[in-house]
Amino acid sequence: MSYCEQLMSLLLPVCSPKVQSILPVAHTKIHPDQKLGESVQQLLLAKIAVYLMTFLIVTVAWAAHVRLFQVIEHIDDVLALLNLACMMIITFLPYTFSLMASFPGVPFGIFLFSVCAVVIGLIQAVIVAYGFYHPHLLNQQIQESENQNFYKRHILKIILRGPVLCFLAAIFSFFFIPLSYVLLGLVIVFPHLTRLITWCKTKILGQRGEEEEHHSLETFTFYLSEPLSKERVEAFSDGVYAIVATLLILDICEDNVPDPREVEEKFRGSLLEALSEYGPNYLAYFGSFVTIGLLWFVHHSLFLYVTKATRLMGLLNILSLAFIGGLPLAYQLTSEFAEKSHNEIEAIQVSCVITFFASIFQFAIWTTALLNEEETLHAFARYGGKEHAFMFAKLALYPCVSLGAFFLTCLLSEFSTAIFHLMQIVIPFAFLALRIFVRISLTAIKSVMSLSRRKVVLLEEEEACLSPNETLS
Amino acid sequence: MSYCEQLMSLLLPVCSPKVQSILPVAHTKIHPDQKLGESVQQLLLAKIAVYLMTFLIVTVAWAAHVRLFQVIEHIDDVLALLNLACMMIITFLPYTFSLMASFPGVPFGIFLFSVCAVVIGLIQAVIVAYGFYHPHLLNQQIQESENQNFYKRHILKIILRGPVLCFLAAIFSFFFIPLSYVLLGLVIVFPHLTRLITWCKTKILGQRGEEEEHHSLETFTFYLSEPLSKERVEAFSDGVYAIVATLLILDICEDNVPDPREVEEKFRGSLLEALSEYGPNYLAYFGSFVTIGLLWFVHHSLFLYVTKATRLMGLLNILSLAFIGGLPLAYQLTSEFAEKSHNEIEAIQVSCVITFFASIFQFAIWTTALLNEEETLHAFARYGGKEHAFMFAKLALYPCVSLGAFFLTCLLSEFSTAIFHLMQIVIPFAFLALRIFVRISLTAIKSVMSLSRRKVVLLEEEEACLSPNETLS
Repeated sequence: MSYCEQLMSLLLPVCSPKVQSILPVAHTKIHPDQKLGESVQQLLLAKIAVYLMTFLIVTVAWAAHVRLFQVIEHIDDVLALLNLACMMIITFLPYTFSLMASFPGVPFGIFLFSVCAVVIGLIQAVIVAYGFYHPHLLNQQIQESENQNFYKRHILKIILRGPVLCFLAAIFSFFFIPLSYVLLGLVIVFPHLTRLITWCKTKILGQRGEEEEHHSLETFTFYLSEPLSKERVEAFSDGVYAIVATLLILDICEDNVPDPREVEEKFRGSLLEALSEYGPNYLAYFGSFVTIGLLWFVHHSLFLYVTKATRLMGLLNILSLAFIGGLPLAYQLTSEFAEKSHNEIEAIQVSCVITFFASIFQFAIWTTALLNEEETLHAFARYGGKEHAFMFAKLALYPCVSLGAFFLTCLLSEFSTAIFHLMQIVIPFAFLALRIFVRISLTAIKSVMSLSRRKVVLLEEEEACLSPNETLS
Repeated sequence: MSYCEQLMSLLLPVCSPKVQSILPVAHTKIHPDQKLGESVQQLLLAKIAVYLMTFLIVTVAWAAHVRLFQVIEHIDDVLALLNLACMMIITFLPYTFSLMASFPGVPFGIFLFSVCAVVIGLIQAVIVAYGFYHPHLLNQQIQESENQNFYKRHILKIILRGPVLCFLAAIFSFFFIPLSYVLLGLVIVFPHLTRLITWCKTKILGQRGEEEEHHSLETFTFYLSEPLSKERVEAFSDGVYAIVATLLILDICEDNVPDPREVEEKFRGSLLEALSEYGPNYLAYFGSFVTIGLLWFVHHSLFLYVTKATRLMGLLNILSLAFIGGLPLAYQLTSEFAEKSHNEIEAIQVSCVITFFASIFQFAIWTTALLNEEETLHAFARYGGKEHAFMFAKLALYPCVSLGAFFLTCLLSEFSTAIFHLMQIVIPFAFLALRIFVRISLTAIKSVMSLSRRKVVLLEEEEACLSPNETLS
């Protein structure tokens, strides 16, 4: 089912930048003298919230889809066509998101979205029913099991709980819209909520409750309550990074190819002169590409040493990806305000904030993994492992740099986007030099440590020397 | 290196629809009364040629990249960063294509493209040099071999022949542009040309030449002269289909979300009324999605029974993908001319032509595979296999339907885009009914055959009966 997974991972960032392109920033081309700060505050409240919500909902849909095809392992023509129908509705979701983001107060957007979610759920239910009607399509373990009906009910419950909430949201959208938004938010937190509730139950009722449940679910829990495998998380993330990188070039192709007539009239046919007007945009493009590429590089290095992704690590990864999806916005902002204006500094600051959150969530994956390092990390990356300090430095570089750039913009008024993008392009060399730097600092720390220890020893010796003297005098 | 591969497969169609969106059709919004026919003829000549050329060049780059990482199997940080730099230049290629397509007569576009290609080649050469300097990164087989230097030269030759041609193209772009285009075209056909030449040589000189070459290249030919593996071709195709499907929603999100102010003024705040104006566009969206989805479905069914992809099959697959990349143009055309106008019929015809070529090249993959069925096909799909007739019907459906629709448009003047898209949406049911239909027709053919045989037998018997009668009379 690799086609479906690729579609899914493509869809995530696609729904992001296009929701963003409807934002006033990109479309109405704010006047250079108008303050960006206020408009950013306005859109931060309503529309970026919608973006994050929809991003997370598509992620939930992706997880349900992966679960579904853990149960149904073989597909025939009917299943392939049913699945295509499902994918068709899913690709339509970004459009409903756009409607929701442009008309947050009108019930129709949220209604359309909910109807789509319900239809997706129904198609997936039909897929499950078809799969259990033709047992040779099922996973080997379930195929051999005796109580298939129980499994069927369990997987249907997992698949349909989202659509049921969406159905309620669709009904309430005509009476009281905020409740609909709350219900949609519930779709995202529901899996974590149920887990929290069972965790609380077992804490209150003791270990008994969990054991009982464990007994009844047999080996099935092993399959469907486990967090998604590391490989899938990795593949999914790769897809998101790749499409975000590609979206950058879509933007540059759309906006920065001069009009042949304009070139003729304004630049007397000299294409080179016409293109030189876009100089800062090229810088912004390469700067943004380098940032996305290096964040992927850090992600790749991190997952090289991750042996198992826990549920919390998966969640942090998705939050990091949500900010990665925001990077094309950062590019649009910084390339749009490349000319000196009041908004230039604000554009850089937004870029810094997005980069900071994308990288700090990566750092959080690492610290979460360290809490349980025996299970989740390769021996090299654990405390005292030979790659531990280097991994730390790699993951800490981007948060530090983006934070530093943010405060620099507050202090220095000459700090322009050109400097910012040049800085972005220079960072790869920092990564190349990082290993050397880490080694030097490690040996420095060691020598300082041993020096201070020696000092302590010397002082003790001196004291020891003095005390006899003292006793002598 | 899955990130890189995903980037590559994303890039292919991205460079396509954006080159197309610069085409007069999509940008300048032809007046409904103006004839589309003439403008289509104009752009068919120059710009679609540029699109096909660039599509094929990116494919050549992809193949070189896959070859490179067949030799270098492990990567360290330096290689990952070098590769990212390479990817950055590759993602910039669609922009140079856009320049070439908008200004086919200006040397700068072709110069910029060639320079990018040369830089990519140089970075890849550095990757090879680095890899051979640190042999533990290499493929096991090459690592253990004695004449690594020979392998190094051979892989460098494969990687650098494209960039050398581009370098010449860059120089000639200032003197004589057509020669540059010829040189770039040579990049695409070069691998096939050298193969053809060696094939001719062996035909003329006998088997001796080939054997000699075979001896000197040892096991290496096994690696690098083989066509790319079936799995890679499949994964690459999946990526192209997925992004093309996603690009459709990008278009619909960009153009069909009404402006809040307009809704307030024109439709007195009724979003539903405003959206009903876009009705034909939704139909066009779902119709195009169904077409892409089903073409993927046919491709998937075909490759289920393909056991090995030969070089020719790979080439046909890429040509099919090139037309798949043209489908967003078909969508734009048919959704733009949804209102009754002179151009409606032409838009449908372009869609039919694109669909026809995409599907007929899939059919060609199948017939090519059949020529050598022992090697390339699963036993089920060979002549007389139990899936043979069904595969044939599946692959023949789209060419027949698109051809039929094309001729219908010539005959019937009432044939509108709405009917066309409804037809597209109905086709999945044809696929569902296909198996039944094939069975019925097979039994019909068999019974007809046996009937005719029986008739022949009866006639013979009659004759036999008659002749004794005759002899009697």
